[in-house]
Amino acid sequence: MTSRTEISDLGEFELIEHLTKNFEIHNASTILSVGDDAAVIDHFGKQTVITTDLLLEGIHFDLMYTPLKHLGYKSVIVNLSDIYAMNATPTQITLSIGLSNKVSLEALDEFYEGVFAACEKYGVDLIGGDTSSSQKGFIISVTAIGEVTPDTFVKRSTAQKGDLICVSGDVGGAFLGLTLMEREKKIYLENPKIQPDLEGEDYIVGRLLKPEARKDIIEFLAANDIIPTSMMDVSDGVSSEVLHLCKQSNLGCVIYENKLPIHEDAKMAAFKFGLDPTVCALNGGEDYELIFTMKQSDYDKITLNEEIAVIGYMEEIEKGCKIITKGGNTFDIKAQGWNAFS
Amino acid sequence: MTSRTEISDLGEFELIEHLTKNFEIHNASTILSVGDDAAVIDHFGKQTVITTDLLLEGIHFDLMYTPLKHLGYKSVIVNLSDIYAMNATPTQITLSIGLSNKVSLEALDEFYEGVFAACEKYGVDLIGGDTSSSQKGFIISVTAIGEVTPDTFVKRSTAQKGDLICVSGDVGGAFLGLTLMEREKKIYLENPKIQPDLEGEDYIVGRLLKPEARKDIIEFLAANDIIPTSMMDVSDGVSSEVLHLCKQSNLGCVIYENKLPIHEDAKMAAFKFGLDPTVCALNGGEDYELIFTMKQSDYDKITLNEEIAVIGYMEEIEKGCKIITKGGNTFDIKAQGWNAFS
Repeated sequence: MTSRTEISDLGEFELIEHLTKNFEIHNASTILSVGDDAAVIDHFGKQTVITTDLLLEGIHFDLMYTPLKHLGYKSVIVNLSDIYAMNATPTQITLSIGLSNKVSLEALDEFYEGVFAACEKYGVDLIGGDTSSSQKGFIISVTAIGEVTPDTFVKRSTAQKGDLICVSGDVGGAFLGLTLMEREKKIYLENPKIQPDLEGEDYIVGRLLKPEARKDIIEFLAANDIIPTSMMDVSDGVSSEVLHLCKQSNLGCVIYENKLPIHEDAKMAAFKFGLDPTVCALNGGEDYELIFTMKQSDYDKITLNEEIAVIGYMEEIEKGCKIITKGGNTFDIKAQGWNAFS
Repeated sequence: MTSRTEISDLGEFELIEHLTKNFEIHNASTILSVGDDAAVIDHFGKQTVITTDLLLEGIHFDLMYTPLKHLGYKSVIVNLSDIYAMNATPTQITLSIGLSNKVSLEALDEFYEGVFAACEKYGVDLIGGDTSSSQKGFIISVTAIGEVTPDTFVKRSTAQKGDLICVSGDVGGAFLGLTLMEREKKIYLENPKIQPDLEGEDYIVGRLLKPEARKDIIEFLAANDIIPTSMMDVSDGVSSEVLHLCKQSNLGCVIYENKLPIHEDAKMAAFKFGLDPTVCALNGGEDYELIFTMKQSDYDKITLNEEIAVIGYMEEIEKGCKIITKGGNTFDIKAQGWNAFS
């Protein structure tokens, strides 16, 4: 029998002490961490990059099939991904949580195990936050802080006509993982005796539940003297992100369906669910890959990196934003990414 | 008839554009603001101070008697208060919100009016955030960022024996405002025909609904070359905060009941409600005043500032944490401040 400790048995300060006691500081830039009115950071001449994300139970995640440890991990990753997308290095996070009385201390410990695993892997310090009870649902708010050499951050608005559009890793997998989990949840709710069938679906489930941020891509670009001309992370699907880069850079684009990087396991899953893998890649979301543009002259440098696919190029705005299908047809790209209000 | 626009009629990006379009940047340290994966800050050699707070409907505020504009204002203030409590200057905030479908665009605009009023008054830039729907209740997460000359921030843990304990403004008023509003709410719920009676209670209602952060005190201390030996803000009541300073500085203390700064209107309200003003001041919370310790040799410098009261002094740890009452009796100070989990 596993024990259950109520969070309300601890005071807020005991809780924070309990949750953060085993956590070590990795960065010289962390001058003062948890335990005061605010934390203090010194990036010693570098610029500070800051991003924040809210993750809400029932909107962004479903605790029925999301292990708390994975949720903790992912809550950090989705924020680090935004820091890397600025061509910066994450150094700290703050983490605020609102908890319903459904959540025991043991469950919260699991969540923090995931948070710490992500912090450890990416060399990031947890320097502050807030804890509260919530009326309903688990509420997570993470702010990630990073550093970048002055004025080397990469915006979305600075792509040039003719630049190549690149995507890291593969896309569409997380959406297929979500589709699978939602299907299994529905089956389970209709008949709790049927055990979930995730056989052979490790890849897409992993893409949904345990995403990674593309630290390696940022390091590769730096090591090869490639400064992207624009960049963002792929959280709402390639279509939506390409359109952002185009709109903010005041350009059009052409992308090729057959260049979209889709994992074999994702393709198989898509066919199984009767979905078009291309649609999953374009509109899926939650991949936490990087999409960036670079000068054509940098093309040779990236050919050796199998984790980077060139999917098209930027065009003048009058040409619009187009996708050329495998069959050679041309369509307008439409944003159908995930909308937190729909 | 006032119109009502559903938030879901706008996409997330249109919403963010709508909410932030009239907002101007005040600080040279804001290099890149809303609209990219992350914001970029440069404090040009200063250190960066960061704090975050979660405000949840039904836990931290009640929309039945909290105007949205005031809520927006207060959401910023409670975070700025933490930055000032480090002896630092706030420069930026990020703001994430989760909205139930109860909230219309017009209501959200009111909330943002309050946010912008606070940003304007304190010279702070809104540089990022996140918006989402919520299953239940209005969710607010603010992160405030400030700057401080390297190593001049003031911690809680550095008070010395013999230091004077000071409190800014007055305390207990916000708790009495809350008591009043909860009483009026109860009466209204029992009989909706009875209009709330807030006659003559402007002061305590204002303390609850429209607190200010003590920028003026930080500026006064700097102008008079006073560096507090320890400091924090008074958000959970004087008792709780004094005990934090003592515990983190490994000291005891003596405070005097008759030195606690309590506003006349708060005293009157306390008597009306049958409450002890001292208890309200010690345990009330939400005053957002500053409590700090300073060397006795700085005493002369503060005597001219009527907004600073000396309430006692730090003692060696063996002496414990004591309050001496008006009648001359001595009691242990007990933390009975607000607990978000109780």
